[in-house]
Amino acid sequence: MTNERLSRQLHFILEIDKLKGVLRRSLLLDSRRRENSAEHSWHLAMMTLVLAEHVDEPVDPLHTLKLVLVHDIVEIDAGDTYAYDPDAHTGKNEREQEAARRIFGLLPDDQAKELNGLWEEYEGQQTPESRFALALDRLMPLLHNYHSGGITWRENRVTSEQVVERMKPVASSSDALGEAAASVVKQAMASGLLPDTWSDP
Amino acid sequence: MTNERLSRQLHFILEIDKLKGVLRRSLLLDSRRRENSAEHSWHLAMMTLVLAEHVDEPVDPLHTLKLVLVHDIVEIDAGDTYAYDPDAHTGKNEREQEAARRIFGLLPDDQAKELNGLWEEYEGQQTPESRFALALDRLMPLLHNYHSGGITWRENRVTSEQVVERMKPVASSSDALGEAAASVVKQAMASGLLPDTWSDP
Repeated sequence: MTNERLSRQLHFILEIDKLKGVLRRSLLLDSRRRENSAEHSWHLAMMTLVLAEHVDEPVDPLHTLKLVLVHDIVEIDAGDTYAYDPDAHTGKNEREQEAARRIFGLLPDDQAKELNGLWEEYEGQQTPESRFALALDRLMPLLHNYHSGGITWRENRVTSEQVVERMKPVASSSDALGEAAASVVKQAMASGLLPDTWSDP
Repeated sequence: MTNERLSRQLHFILEIDKLKGVLRRSLLLDSRRRENSAEHSWHLAMMTLVLAEHVDEPVDPLHTLKLVLVHDIVEIDAGDTYAYDPDAHTGKNEREQEAARRIFGLLPDDQAKELNGLWEEYEGQQTPESRFALALDRLMPLLHNYHSGGITWRENRVTSEQVVERMKPVASSSDALGEAAASVVKQAMASGLLPDTWSDP
């Protein structure tokens, strides 16, 4: 291939295949296996298309799609950090910065800068699109956990208080989605999937 | 939940989780397992962002993203149809039409119509965006098969002539991507991964 720019782009495309091997804690709805970060990113992109009308501030759909498609790519090097594991968050920022440099750096400079900027924007949470993207990223695991019988909550002794705290960005982006999340949390509590405390094992 | 519209949208979001369980013939690059259609759709979306500059006719990136995100959802009911298996194509169109009716029909009517329209546009191949989306859908399995050692070609006795034919839409959308595909096919033939004919087993 004589086209150096395209050659770098294809190298990046091949490299990010690895995101399909990064496993999250969430199970698929049929509980057969854990979800990977690539298929999760697709799911958030579909949610962006279907749910954008509920966001309380105006959002650019294309820009939101870019954010959700790119937001987890650093996990190829840095791994998925489980939300309810405080220890795992030590050094997370440095690991992810280094990952962004390496992986986005495979692209031609202008695109490396653009994708790194998208990832930083998502992390920074200062734009309507990044807040919507985070809301979707918080809402989906709630739906997954509730509809797959709360297995991940039970395994990790997650409490209702932790989940309520975790859902705050959903209501910050959208009243309607925040209400939907609150309603699912309430049902999960009522059905015993999500208690206030877990008794000692 | 009192919001009937949102309730239908969330039902759809949960239903399409099943696309993560639809397996394609392609292996991941590390050959550890077969790829599923949800993570494949994410990969095409990333390709859209990175490779759109190479398309020879002007394309709307947001519209192309919508097409690639939605294009395989009918497989939840209709299954993945392997490119090089002519028998599997019998009744494919009817199965997929019925799947589109059921799955997109979970959404509120306006969105059902929009997503069904996107899927029909992709299938119809009459717009620059649908041609670009198909080009990506043809290019990626070539890269996957070549870089994972041609296992899928060998298993299914796929010939170089079949792959050359299969790559035609790539060059139709983009000269640069068409050249890149031709170069990979040439390398695959030179290294014996993709012969003119397979000798009897």
